[in-house]
Amino acid sequence: MININANAPSVLVVGAGAVGAFYGSVLARAGAQVSVVCRSDFAAVARDGYSISSFQFGDYDFRPAQVVRSVADHKGAPDYLILATKMLEGEDRAKLIRPAVGPKTVIVLLQNGIDIEPEIVSAFPENEVLSCLAFVGVSRIAAGRISHQLFGRLVLGKYPSGPSAAAQHLGKRWEVGGVACEVVENIVTARWQKAVWNATFNPLSVFGGTLDTTQMLGSRIAEDFVRVSMRETCTVAAACGHRLPAEAVDTHIADTRAMPPYKTSMALDFEAGRPMEVEAIIGNVVRAGRRAGVAIPTLETIYAITKMIEQKFQCL
Amino acid sequence: MININANAPSVLVVGAGAVGAFYGSVLARAGAQVSVVCRSDFAAVARDGYSISSFQFGDYDFRPAQVVRSVADHKGAPDYLILATKMLEGEDRAKLIRPAVGPKTVIVLLQNGIDIEPEIVSAFPENEVLSCLAFVGVSRIAAGRISHQLFGRLVLGKYPSGPSAAAQHLGKRWEVGGVACEVVENIVTARWQKAVWNATFNPLSVFGGTLDTTQMLGSRIAEDFVRVSMRETCTVAAACGHRLPAEAVDTHIADTRAMPPYKTSMALDFEAGRPMEVEAIIGNVVRAGRRAGVAIPTLETIYAITKMIEQKFQCL
Repeated sequence: MININANAPSVLVVGAGAVGAFYGSVLARAGAQVSVVCRSDFAAVARDGYSISSFQFGDYDFRPAQVVRSVADHKGAPDYLILATKMLEGEDRAKLIRPAVGPKTVIVLLQNGIDIEPEIVSAFPENEVLSCLAFVGVSRIAAGRISHQLFGRLVLGKYPSGPSAAAQHLGKRWEVGGVACEVVENIVTARWQKAVWNATFNPLSVFGGTLDTTQMLGSRIAEDFVRVSMRETCTVAAACGHRLPAEAVDTHIADTRAMPPYKTSMALDFEAGRPMEVEAIIGNVVRAGRRAGVAIPTLETIYAITKMIEQKFQCL
Repeated sequence: MININANAPSVLVVGAGAVGAFYGSVLARAGAQVSVVCRSDFAAVARDGYSISSFQFGDYDFRPAQVVRSVADHKGAPDYLILATKMLEGEDRAKLIRPAVGPKTVIVLLQNGIDIEPEIVSAFPENEVLSCLAFVGVSRIAAGRISHQLFGRLVLGKYPSGPSAAAQHLGKRWEVGGVACEVVENIVTARWQKAVWNATFNPLSVFGGTLDTTQMLGSRIAEDFVRVSMRETCTVAAACGHRLPAEAVDTHIADTRAMPPYKTSMALDFEAGRPMEVEAIIGNVVRAGRRAGVAIPTLETIYAITKMIEQKFQCL
């Protein structure tokens, strides 16, 4: 039995953009002591905290316990360090978080993509690493101002697998704060399940000047093609030991059709001229498929085109 | 021996946009009687003719013998009817040209794509049909004003194959006018050779907000991918009885690298918000591959994405 009224855990969110700040704020609502490392919006957040407008919780403020500009400035080793930065090439995540990782700190990767954990596990072999997926529509609308527009569910588990008291505690805290958090023993399988959607819709959404989900499912030929691409990801997942339910693709299509037209994170990054999470979201899926010797011509094509587009914008 | 000083042939260019007007003007420079059907720029062309600015020939005027708004307004049946409209879905080309096709009129298809001839051959079974490829960078810069910026070579031949005195005569006339025109006995093979370039670079160029050739060959991964896609087109061509030279892909890549950054016709259409020649350029290649039972996963992917993009813009 988990006693949620035990000592409030201390949490440090590294990369407190929209996702990090929102999920940090939910833990704070549940009594956790939440601090943030906030690089780009430091001045505004240090002064005023966050102002969050949520379709679910209404408008509320989130005043972090500490607001620091860099991890080294944080005082104390947190019980949980939640890393919520974007997954970009060339970012040394282990170096980034190392100053705040104590011997008992549980590291939580609240980040997109496949195969994003090994780098952290090998850098911190003594620490427990949790991997976490967010199903949420949340965006930064100004410095320190966050809008929570859609969904909010989390899936959390110990990497690579197995039960975890730390995951149970953190998940319970999030649930008390108001978001659903499913704690699973096979988080990598859950990551693959999400990758089926992400590795197809995210890259496709930046082709042709950005496409929303309705446009990507706008004709029979389009939907058939999306299914081919998603099935390839399922095949890679299975080859990596993560057999997904037979209806995985159908479910993704039906869920997506039930949503209003939705812009992926990659489409939003593209439109804003920000770097895109190409490698974590599709590159790692393609590499996993190559290692497994699986035929993934559609994913290979989508990946190559995405790299072409990425390179164009890096050159501008 | 061809006597180029024989009676000047009469030529009607249907679809006198940049390509049609330019190649019509070259025939006029060589003494042919060239008329044009000019829909969108009728008023300006009827009044002033064309003003052409060519990197090769300098600035010159082209005064067509007749300028008409529709084919039915043309007086007489021409020796050659050159159809130079864009290949768009839903356009009934046979109906368009029928009023001017006499029993001896040679129909010349100066249009993009693969498998564009059968519709015309079956509509005019008694007429000789020539098929013609233009390798040229030419654009309309205002009503009646054409800019010829790059290349100009033609490849011409009787459809589906064989020698043709009509092709020899017309080709000679173009050469006298100043452009190289190779007359071949296997024009469909030549069309497939060009499709290797077109079916890859044209669709790719409208992904990510338009890419030029330098961007599409901007990295190793990009070039490798372009090669995979081009090889699939070569495989389709071979399955259709048109085995291309082993070095076809290498030659296209080398030639493209030797060009300045180049925007494809599809990219120009995309940027201008005009319909794109999706079916003629890639759809027909994909259908030929399906009929032949050839594995073309890359072309299928490119085609599906292109249709997605096309549909988005049709809905705007």
